[in-house]
Amino acid sequence: MRPALWFKLGLREWPDYVPLVPLLQNYKSEDFSHDLTAGLVVGMITIPQAVAYAFLAGVPPQSGLYACLVPMVLYAIFGSSRQLVVGPVAVAALMVAATVSQYAPRYSEAYLGITLIICLQAGIFLWILRLSRMGGLVNLLSHPVISGFVNAAAILIIVSQLPAFTGIEVDGAIEPFTLLSALLPRLVEIQPLTLAFAVASLVFLLAFPAIARGILARLKYPNAQASAISRLGPMAVALLSIIVVWAAGLGASLDVVGEIPSGLPGITIPPFNLELWLDVLPASVIIALVSYVESYSIGTTLAARKLTRINAHQELIALGAANIGAAFTGAYPVAGSFSRSSVNFSAGGRTPVSSLVCAVVVILALLFLTGIFSVLPNAVLSAIVMVSVIGLMDLKTTREHWALQKHDVITEYATLFMVLFLGVETGLIGGVLLSIAFFIRSSSRPNITQVGRLGDTEHFRSIKRHDVETLPHVLALRVDENIYFGNAVQIEDKFLKRSQRRKGTRHLLMVCSSVNLIDATGMQMLHRLNSNLKRADIALSLCDVKGTLMPTVEASGLTEALTGQIFFTADRAMKHFEQELEAQQKPTDAEINGRQDPI
Amino acid sequence: MRPALWFKLGLREWPDYVPLVPLLQNYKSEDFSHDLTAGLVVGMITIPQAVAYAFLAGVPPQSGLYACLVPMVLYAIFGSSRQLVVGPVAVAALMVAATVSQYAPRYSEAYLGITLIICLQAGIFLWILRLSRMGGLVNLLSHPVISGFVNAAAILIIVSQLPAFTGIEVDGAIEPFTLLSALLPRLVEIQPLTLAFAVASLVFLLAFPAIARGILARLKYPNAQASAISRLGPMAVALLSIIVVWAAGLGASLDVVGEIPSGLPGITIPPFNLELWLDVLPASVIIALVSYVESYSIGTTLAARKLTRINAHQELIALGAANIGAAFTGAYPVAGSFSRSSVNFSAGGRTPVSSLVCAVVVILALLFLTGIFSVLPNAVLSAIVMVSVIGLMDLKTTREHWALQKHDVITEYATLFMVLFLGVETGLIGGVLLSIAFFIRSSSRPNITQVGRLGDTEHFRSIKRHDVETLPHVLALRVDENIYFGNAVQIEDKFLKRSQRRKGTRHLLMVCSSVNLIDATGMQMLHRLNSNLKRADIALSLCDVKGTLMPTVEASGLTEALTGQIFFTADRAMKHFEQELEAQQKPTDAEINGRQDPI
Repeated sequence: MRPALWFKLGLREWPDYVPLVPLLQNYKSEDFSHDLTAGLVVGMITIPQAVAYAFLAGVPPQSGLYACLVPMVLYAIFGSSRQLVVGPVAVAALMVAATVSQYAPRYSEAYLGITLIICLQAGIFLWILRLSRMGGLVNLLSHPVISGFVNAAAILIIVSQLPAFTGIEVDGAIEPFTLLSALLPRLVEIQPLTLAFAVASLVFLLAFPAIARGILARLKYPNAQASAISRLGPMAVALLSIIVVWAAGLGASLDVVGEIPSGLPGITIPPFNLELWLDVLPASVIIALVSYVESYSIGTTLAARKLTRINAHQELIALGAANIGAAFTGAYPVAGSFSRSSVNFSAGGRTPVSSLVCAVVVILALLFLTGIFSVLPNAVLSAIVMVSVIGLMDLKTTREHWALQKHDVITEYATLFMVLFLGVETGLIGGVLLSIAFFIRSSSRPNITQVGRLGDTEHFRSIKRHDVETLPHVLALRVDENIYFGNAVQIEDKFLKRSQRRKGTRHLLMVCSSVNLIDATGMQMLHRLNSNLKRADIALSLCDVKGTLMPTVEASGLTEALTGQIFFTADRAMKHFEQELEAQQKPTDAEINGRQDPI
Repeated sequence: MRPALWFKLGLREWPDYVPLVPLLQNYKSEDFSHDLTAGLVVGMITIPQAVAYAFLAGVPPQSGLYACLVPMVLYAIFGSSRQLVVGPVAVAALMVAATVSQYAPRYSEAYLGITLIICLQAGIFLWILRLSRMGGLVNLLSHPVISGFVNAAAILIIVSQLPAFTGIEVDGAIEPFTLLSALLPRLVEIQPLTLAFAVASLVFLLAFPAIARGILARLKYPNAQASAISRLGPMAVALLSIIVVWAAGLGASLDVVGEIPSGLPGITIPPFNLELWLDVLPASVIIALVSYVESYSIGTTLAARKLTRINAHQELIALGAANIGAAFTGAYPVAGSFSRSSVNFSAGGRTPVSSLVCAVVVILALLFLTGIFSVLPNAVLSAIVMVSVIGLMDLKTTREHWALQKHDVITEYATLFMVLFLGVETGLIGGVLLSIAFFIRSSSRPNITQVGRLGDTEHFRSIKRHDVETLPHVLALRVDENIYFGNAVQIEDKFLKRSQRRKGTRHLLMVCSSVNLIDATGMQMLHRLNSNLKRADIALSLCDVKGTLMPTVEASGLTEALTGQIFFTADRAMKHFEQELEAQQKPTDAEINGRQDPI
């Protein structure tokens, strides 16, 4: 039995499903030196971020590191992007915290168990999207919805870090306004040492990139490498603060990460409880969709810079595998990380081998560095989280949009406020429904433009925008929208109104060059319009009907029912009507004979 | 003070808001004879239907008659349709029964109170739609959704009449399957006399139109009048059965309508209870939307036969007024009646004056005939209801649709089954969401067609369907869909893929003749596509961009960012590219000089 047969899945050969294999077959030694450097740099950024996002998600610090092992490696094996680094990300961590803290206390075993259920459900959901070819569903998360969501998530994340940042202990509050109102009256409880560490870390992290770049520029480092190294602020601040805590013996006066079990992750089984599974399912679906959209968009951007493309279907498989891997290795939901992927790119990472190098760095950390990290103050982690999410915020684009499309800006801000005030899930679903509503609304107010011949050309353009020629007995109207249930009545009404208003109209020509779809409601309307116009002695003709629409038009019987004809182009239709007019104006033989008689 | 100023509401003069006034000013005496005949015939059909639908809705019989007074007159005053007859209808009665029976026992005072709340809310909602110019919302009730809903409603109504039809008493069951399962084991309890009356009425009603037409044809009656008179079956069967019950003294052995209070309606005030108001609000909104869609569609059809149009805005005002009138006169929700409106039309009704005549007939019935109707058997009413709704069912069209648009058929049957199994509201909302989902899905899979020049013309058509000419270095792709969040990624992906596959492509021409909308997500995609193609040394150009889109394109900065140009037409673009090719192939002076040098 040939293995190739075994692995044949549908149309593609099996290596198409495991992009790492053909990649390693053609791997060159010069690639490895690039991947090694990039992997080491990314690894150094990954460790403090993984611990910080675990802290944000409410899972133990080792879970964050585990998320950079099996899930990251699975993505490296199955992913179609060469530079995308998958692992813990802030937005998924926030969504985990918002969901799971409703069911169990943070850091508890039950809490981690529910997190694993979410990983598994999210992974399976992504695979289902792939199998059912419904990946297009993620398009519903339009740019304004994602943008509003990410900005709201950033605000939520920053607020969620305030207790750790100030040292004020607030129990269980995750909802931002509850948290703020619990914090404000207790401002006197601020722990000066914690705040000092937090503020110092924040200032360090904000200043580090510019200072590092300045120094590296003087040392004549290449720009790309300098940019990668300047992202090492989190690692630097973590190591510095660990040294300070150690040297000054502050471990007891500060909230610190605490003991991290040394060694590699064991196999974990997500607990099964039908009710709980159904309860967290909506959150899992949303985490999966948001993670996929973000990963895909980062992957596409990086691929485009190398003139390559990523495969949307394969990305569903790879991200699904990564999350299922997370479920069975005690990690938490993973996605493509914007910051680490771009560092990987600028540090020269050429293939997913850099992710494998990064995984080795994480393994080394898990084996030898867990002791060091146990004295890392939570205040420093909160500063790392805050600075990371500030980078995600994007408030600039909205200003551009207002002039262009007010609907999009309204959708963006509505999503932002709904996420802040009504929660992550309601906010996202509300945003999606709002964008659909605006889309339906705009297509239900179709533009109907009267067109005429442009000079001597075969082009027909708007009589309002261009100096065009028309025929007195023909009203040519272009429908600038699909004809479907959302606008059939409006189109019918406008056609009847225009044809009744314009005296002398004998032919109504519907120019369908912009019509890509006619549904059953639309087709029924065309039949009705045709018979209503017939009573007014106006013939209805169509032109420029798309080839894809003709079978539907013919099957509906409109071709025979039509009082006019279906013309190939507006040009041919108008030439036909011109000849008809000339034939009418030129007296027929019978008329000439008739006139001669009385003489 | 001039009254005209007082009544000036916005842009239109006040008579525009009260179409009956200008109509009466131009009223001719010959119109009256037509309206009188039509009004008398419609009145005779209205009385038994009004009592039967009241029975279906679960309100006292007089409520049905009251619905043909003030509400009908208010519509006659404000409506823009000349032939539409507004009053009690089967579908609204079913929806009232399905909603109100959850809160109070049928025929109770509390039940009628809740019905009045629904009337008031429905009326106010229609006015809000008018004021907010959101009347287009009703388009969401697409043809398949309405069709599936009406068929399901007909089934529900027929099932709901089975207890009255057979004489088996079933308490309170309104949900069809509960009702059927309660009925089946009790078939032995069938009351033979009740069933006999019901079956005889059913046969009579089904046979009456054909027999009446046959007789009238022999008497040489004009077709239209014969058609109107042949609809008098309900009145005939009601009178006949009343005579039989009276003559045979069967009043005690049958369920009969019972005493109907004589006289005109008093003023009723819908009870106020915030919780109850919020509970029934969704039902009121749906009743309002369905009533409006049905009324508007009947009105449009009848108007078209007289080559007139009805005004969608004015219909919202008029139907809203009719329902608010119903709330304050002890009636129940009203809508345009298909059967009575078409009888009005075929009996020669020319103006809403026929509705006023019909109202006078109802007043006379309320004053003098209530005693007679008290012995009308419920079994006869159930037969009248059943025959009425059979006429509403429409199963034929779906067969046509399957070949055309499977989505529409799926939506129709899904709505039908959801209404049957999950209830009226859930079913309708589910149907609307399904039709939106299908629409979004189809527009998210846009057709991208490569086009070329058709012979010597200026037309560019699909290279697959026509024998067209292309240029080797230009890839002209027509986008057959709006560019928006639902498909931006797919369009980008297809453009990149096609341009990478076709070797030698230097220009990518996006033909936008079918693009009616570009939203923010789409615009962002075009910018990204432009810069990604630039890296592959392919220039992006657009052509045939609609005039309405140009401001958005310019404001987004695409005009400057574009590596190619925005051409007016595909023809001009291709001529430009042809010249470019010729210029490249023709050696320049410098090249000629260069070649001469070595010689």
